[in-house]
Amino acid sequence: MSLYPIALEIKKLLGTMDGWLDKATAHATAKKFDANTLLQSRLAPDMFPLIRQIQATCDQAKYAFGRATGKDIPSHPDTETTLDEARKRIASVISYLEGFTAKDFDGSDGRTVSLPRWEGKSMTATAYFIEHALPNFFFHYTTTYALLRHNGIDIGKRDYLGAITFR
Amino acid sequence: MSLYPIALEIKKLLGTMDGWLDKATAHATAKKFDANTLLQSRLAPDMFPLIRQIQATCDQAKYAFGRATGKDIPSHPDTETTLDEARKRIASVISYLEGFTAKDFDGSDGRTVSLPRWEGKSMTATAYFIEHALPNFFFHYTTTYALLRHNGIDIGKRDYLGAITFR
Repeated sequence: MSLYPIALEIKKLLGTMDGWLDKATAHATAKKFDANTLLQSRLAPDMFPLIRQIQATCDQAKYAFGRATGKDIPSHPDTETTLDEARKRIASVISYLEGFTAKDFDGSDGRTVSLPRWEGKSMTATAYFIEHALPNFFFHYTTTYALLRHNGIDIGKRDYLGAITFR
Repeated sequence: MSLYPIALEIKKLLGTMDGWLDKATAHATAKKFDANTLLQSRLAPDMFPLIRQIQATCDQAKYAFGRATGKDIPSHPDTETTLDEARKRIASVISYLEGFTAKDFDGSDGRTVSLPRWEGKSMTATAYFIEHALPNFFFHYTTTYALLRHNGIDIGKRDYLGAITFR
């Protein structure tokens, strides 16, 4: 197996996250508050608010795909201030991820990833995907989920896991 | 690649989580409160408290390894009530995970996983690992981290990612 099945899981979960935001909007409408106030919610004063968690989940997904495969990565300037805009960001990234095939992930052991803040160090694209992009994706994905739960949105483990492939 | 590199990442992160609990104890000592009170902290009244998040992180790690490979899985009765006991649970599971080799993960596409609550349905061991155990592991791992941050423990992204394999 290549990294591709794990990449597909990331893509699936990004779509799953979009469903949470739909439920958040419905919850706010029922409770008669502006759903966009949720976007400033934090679990700790020195953690990023919900909007940044959503943006970072999107970023880690595109970095996982783009850097593992050596492809160009689209830029997103983090200007979203509403749930509708956040959902458009998610849709934009999913559309980018849809352009990848299993073949794109071939040879990731032989590719190199280096980020400016690593000061000249590098990782293989495989190690980058597994040890950096994957846990970072789940960090922001789960923190987004936790923030919504913390604010009373009615989502549960099935919403977290998304659709499961039974035989 | 097989599932093994992802399994190694799970094992690494479980050890990383142990370091958070060490910092939590040090923080409580400095602030002169009983560190074990942290174990009852929740992010929402209908989410599990910290102790259950730690136990579940351990469980998902052992399920990922044991079920993907078709090996016996040790039982842990969830009786921990202190951070010291929680850390012994982590050590016990890491010791179990240390017994696995890359070869154990061969052939996961051809193995089947079925849980009682699935009512007769099954997944390939590969799909179970990627779509069930991996996200569930990260769910509880990240919620444990978020609960500690929510309670003021001084941990950050480096504590979350653990040691990174640079070339």
